[in-house]
Amino acid sequence: MKTAEIITIGTEIVSGQITDTNTQYIARKLTEKGIQVLFQTSVGDDKELLKSALGVAKDRVNLIITTGGLGPTENDITRETISDLFSVPLISDEEAHTRIRTFLESRHPKVTNGHKKQALIPAGAFAIHNDKGTAAGFVFRHNDIEIVCLPGVPGEMQTMLNKYLETYAIQHKPEELCTLTRNIHTFGISEPDIDAQLREYAGREGEIKAMTLVHDGIVTVNIIATAATREDAVKILDIAEHDIRERLGHAVFGVGDETLESAVAALLKKYNKTIAVAESCTGGLVSDKLTNIPGISEYFLEGVVAYSNNAKEDILGVSGELIKIHGAVSSQVAKAMAEGVKKRSSANIGVGITGIAGPTGATKEKPVGLVYIAVVVDDVAEVKECRFRGSRIDIKTFSANTALNMVRFKLIQT
Amino acid sequence: MKTAEIITIGTEIVSGQITDTNTQYIARKLTEKGIQVLFQTSVGDDKELLKSALGVAKDRVNLIITTGGLGPTENDITRETISDLFSVPLISDEEAHTRIRTFLESRHPKVTNGHKKQALIPAGAFAIHNDKGTAAGFVFRHNDIEIVCLPGVPGEMQTMLNKYLETYAIQHKPEELCTLTRNIHTFGISEPDIDAQLREYAGREGEIKAMTLVHDGIVTVNIIATAATREDAVKILDIAEHDIRERLGHAVFGVGDETLESAVAALLKKYNKTIAVAESCTGGLVSDKLTNIPGISEYFLEGVVAYSNNAKEDILGVSGELIKIHGAVSSQVAKAMAEGVKKRSSANIGVGITGIAGPTGATKEKPVGLVYIAVVVDDVAEVKECRFRGSRIDIKTFSANTALNMVRFKLIQT
Repeated sequence: MKTAEIITIGTEIVSGQITDTNTQYIARKLTEKGIQVLFQTSVGDDKELLKSALGVAKDRVNLIITTGGLGPTENDITRETISDLFSVPLISDEEAHTRIRTFLESRHPKVTNGHKKQALIPAGAFAIHNDKGTAAGFVFRHNDIEIVCLPGVPGEMQTMLNKYLETYAIQHKPEELCTLTRNIHTFGISEPDIDAQLREYAGREGEIKAMTLVHDGIVTVNIIATAATREDAVKILDIAEHDIRERLGHAVFGVGDETLESAVAALLKKYNKTIAVAESCTGGLVSDKLTNIPGISEYFLEGVVAYSNNAKEDILGVSGELIKIHGAVSSQVAKAMAEGVKKRSSANIGVGITGIAGPTGATKEKPVGLVYIAVVVDDVAEVKECRFRGSRIDIKTFSANTALNMVRFKLIQT
Repeated sequence: MKTAEIITIGTEIVSGQITDTNTQYIARKLTEKGIQVLFQTSVGDDKELLKSALGVAKDRVNLIITTGGLGPTENDITRETISDLFSVPLISDEEAHTRIRTFLESRHPKVTNGHKKQALIPAGAFAIHNDKGTAAGFVFRHNDIEIVCLPGVPGEMQTMLNKYLETYAIQHKPEELCTLTRNIHTFGISEPDIDAQLREYAGREGEIKAMTLVHDGIVTVNIIATAATREDAVKILDIAEHDIRERLGHAVFGVGDETLESAVAALLKKYNKTIAVAESCTGGLVSDKLTNIPGISEYFLEGVVAYSNNAKEDILGVSGELIKIHGAVSSQVAKAMAEGVKKRSSANIGVGITGIAGPTGATKEKPVGLVYIAVVVDDVAEVKECRFRGSRIDIKTFSANTALNMVRFKLIQT
């Protein structure tokens, strides 16, 4: 089986100054392709340290993917380190050099020495060309080990990694076992309940296994299939997914990159329904999530972040009397907010959310984490009382995801 | 100088199923304390692989921090691996055991064997107690190397890391040089312009250095000071920060954990001003960011996500005529949105944002990334035309940050 190590190169990463998103992206892509990632390493822009990291990696895996250190500056040391470590000269790749010249033509007056350096690859390697920038990547083979060096800019890296993986998928040796994985996302069933329903997958060795992960209230079932061929592994995943969907029902909202908001957007489109959202404690997070989905403008009409009582009354038509009697954080006000925004916008679906995100604002009767969420379709309202734990941002996130899931259920039941 | 490696343990991390936030947190904390992080490694829940990772780490750094693998299940292997690798028995820490019993009392009927395991630490180690969960952490010394094992749950890990670092800070040997770092965040000046202004810091070796990092349009200047004592290093950082603030002026909006939204919130409080936001292409992101700040409800009155023209007209009072003549994406409509939401809410400051986040919706005259942002204070409006590049989410983020920065400038100039 192919085993891999991902090495990210950059002092700003290793010292915690910036968030590294490349490693997770690469790990997911490799795992999807049936390549087992054994290690991830980050190291600063230092030739000796990188040499040490590569030296360790080449003795414990057979595929190394590096990102970063391919820029035009002196701090970019990946090419030179590979050249030193494996005693191979660097040569200029002709096509990469032409591409750099063409790329820079419209932007810079002339190609600098730094940019010329970006066309260099180890002798015997083959280049992975960069359609979005100047750094050429490359694949270098040493004995049985393949080393793939990619730039650190996420957009460039991703395109180039996918180019490489397409090549790799073709070269996958048929005698090796193929392991593939798939993520099935659920909302509304607890992790222990899911574990109980999927017990027979849990401890299983062999062709299919499953494990659960929790994030932002979403429980993801990660299934892993091993088979002689890629086709067989896909078949096993398909059967397992079908079985898990049967067991968990509508709690399953998507697989892979699908999110609660993309699931809601797809259902709005499918049933041709429009939506409007009135938020208090979530502060616009539901609207923000929905508007991350391209094309949502046909279905999402408006959002109102009614933080003040004045906004609740004036824009949403919630009666001041109702707020006075039940308080702004109450099921009655959540329902009135949902009805108000629905009526105002003439949307098919109205959502209302009010609660206490904390850390202040709690009373004895209404603790931090108490949230009311209402969804109104036609004239039917559903209101849920939730008690969440965690930080202010946790409570916003749990509330937004719960609201999106309630809308999803309403649409499915339509 | 103290050098460190961070090892995160978990198959779900190494295979890319979940995002690891622990590593960056630990790296920042260590760097702030003057400990140089040389490597970060992630490895699955596998005893042999973890042994290999620890074996490599102990030969290249003198402080190893691990997270994860301290839970009650069979997959949790950190304690056993340390015990195997260094041939030390595991013993039950009495206080940790009592704490686990007390912690579980209110939740579970009895302490399981799995939970008993969570009180085990290597003989000779000292326990780091866990106030938020059952997994005891520990510090284990082997020759000159210190190995600190912490649980993977972020909330538990963070508290316990800080406990450890407080101890470490006391033990810091006075004869060692101390390196400290500080992040100074700016908005509105380009990275090359900042580099040009801070040229004398750039290549400098010795007591003070600086480098720039860009993220979401924010340019962060990371300054690093090295001195004989902690006090001296702090003094050098203070002088450099003062100098950089003088050079870059109001472009500097904060240091460390401060964000554009926290800077705006602090200024709203300082000048006792209220704000209301009307968003189209940012879809609620500005409201979401502002409402992440505790206590904002006194200053943030309302947000309107006016995706449809109907919402722009009805809630914000933008004239249909104006939209017809100039289009919904125009400086005129941005200004009318800001004025509309300000008037509606009686806030001191109104913000209006309209643009094309893409990937669809562009015309020849109005490309993806064209965004108009208006800020109105009293009767004075400022409108900015921006042309951003990137994905839909990039464009939303750049727009939201630009809007927050415009509000910040208005407040400073008040």
